[in-house]
Amino acid sequence: MKRPLILVTNDDGITSLGIQTLVEIMQELGDVVVVAPDSPQSGMGHAITIGNTLRLDPSTVFQGEGITAYECSGTPADCIKLAKHEVLKNRTPDLVVSGINHGSNSSISVLYSGTMSAAIEAAIEDLPAIGFSLCEYSATADFSHVGKYVKHIAEQVLKNGLPKGIALNVNFPKKSKEEIKGIKICRQARAKWQEEFDQRKDPYGRKYFWMVGKFINFDKGEDNDEWAIANNYVSIVPCMFDLTAHHAISYLNAEWDL
Amino acid sequence: MKRPLILVTNDDGITSLGIQTLVEIMQELGDVVVVAPDSPQSGMGHAITIGNTLRLDPSTVFQGEGITAYECSGTPADCIKLAKHEVLKNRTPDLVVSGINHGSNSSISVLYSGTMSAAIEAAIEDLPAIGFSLCEYSATADFSHVGKYVKHIAEQVLKNGLPKGIALNVNFPKKSKEEIKGIKICRQARAKWQEEFDQRKDPYGRKYFWMVGKFINFDKGEDNDEWAIANNYVSIVPCMFDLTAHHAISYLNAEWDL
Repeated sequence: MKRPLILVTNDDGITSLGIQTLVEIMQELGDVVVVAPDSPQSGMGHAITIGNTLRLDPSTVFQGEGITAYECSGTPADCIKLAKHEVLKNRTPDLVVSGINHGSNSSISVLYSGTMSAAIEAAIEDLPAIGFSLCEYSATADFSHVGKYVKHIAEQVLKNGLPKGIALNVNFPKKSKEEIKGIKICRQARAKWQEEFDQRKDPYGRKYFWMVGKFINFDKGEDNDEWAIANNYVSIVPCMFDLTAHHAISYLNAEWDL
Repeated sequence: MKRPLILVTNDDGITSLGIQTLVEIMQELGDVVVVAPDSPQSGMGHAITIGNTLRLDPSTVFQGEGITAYECSGTPADCIKLAKHEVLKNRTPDLVVSGINHGSNSSISVLYSGTMSAAIEAAIEDLPAIGFSLCEYSATADFSHVGKYVKHIAEQVLKNGLPKGIALNVNFPKKSKEEIKGIKICRQARAKWQEEFDQRKDPYGRKYFWMVGKFINFDKGEDNDEWAIANNYVSIVPCMFDLTAHHAISYLNAEWDL
């Protein structure tokens, strides 16, 4: 049987521990092509590079049989586009995975997430796609408890595919003494980031800011990703790129003087 | 009666013709605060600046009674966050408008759009928000036919508000001999960008790429934004930031071995 072809990317950059972990797991499942950013791209959302040039070069970070790797100067969404048109060309991957992100991409963070933008970009191209994130931000985060779940979820997608237009947003609780309890299919929790701006002076006396955020969860439900993670489950939110608020269409037609 | 407070931003930068047009119209409706990028931010999607510093300085681009303006080194989403926490502080805007973008943000382009990310960021903050875009990319685009529609739509939102969690994606047809036929409330068309990468050599012999895209519309319906624009209507798509594909939750629970 032909081994599946798996495309791997991320937003923390090709040298991060998270993508190394993900690549090792994917090599158990198929042939791997890595096209990942050459520098950190956290918080890039669904940005693409249209006003500037892009580099795409072979990478020596990953080598060996059944794996090829490229590093790209662009965003995670750029990586998917370049992978499709310049690297894979006529080969169609059986699975696209992004991550494992250092830090949560649950709830509203899905919008700001480069990890998930790569998965959603792949879904736009009708490819089955998963973004994986660990709720631990550290560059030396402990990924040892997530391997079997990453593999299981990837196997499910390889076996069953995914409904059209869907990418999975998978978040893992930070490693703790307690074992992970299992997997929950969830909706995106209602939450937001409450920013504060740390104002400083540069050496020339001009002010500048660092954005620092505090996560605020408004959601009291038990069917959302924040609840699942807080209760030591792996959360999976199926995400779509049709942003239409269908319920609001009839409201606007009824209430507005068009 | 107190004049409404209107926050204006965009993604083409504070000196663009589109934001000048939008500011002039908003000044007829209320007091205006501009917090806009100091350089073009097209294609930035919902990117935010977390790995770098931000500048926010008073701008002389817009001056006069009833208007204050700031320029920001960050993305459109950054502009909304800085406007809320550093510029407006305890004042809550009655309306947030973004644009008028030079170029379409209809259909799938909503995901890549800095213009719409600002509007969606405002919706996350429970503020009524509209992104306006003209389907003409030129820096000297003709906005003369859209003024009365921009004003009318803004007035509707000031009068009626918007359902919670909704931002409007408004796109105007390019100016033509035919008058605009009216406004249609639409869903996001099923479409995508088919990229090609224009490969070149730099002066040192190293290759680089420019991303060039061709828009492909798969949608045969007449209730979507692409149809509306092609038929010389103003399209309005109500957009939401809950990406959950609710229909896929029961599918995954039924089909998957969790």
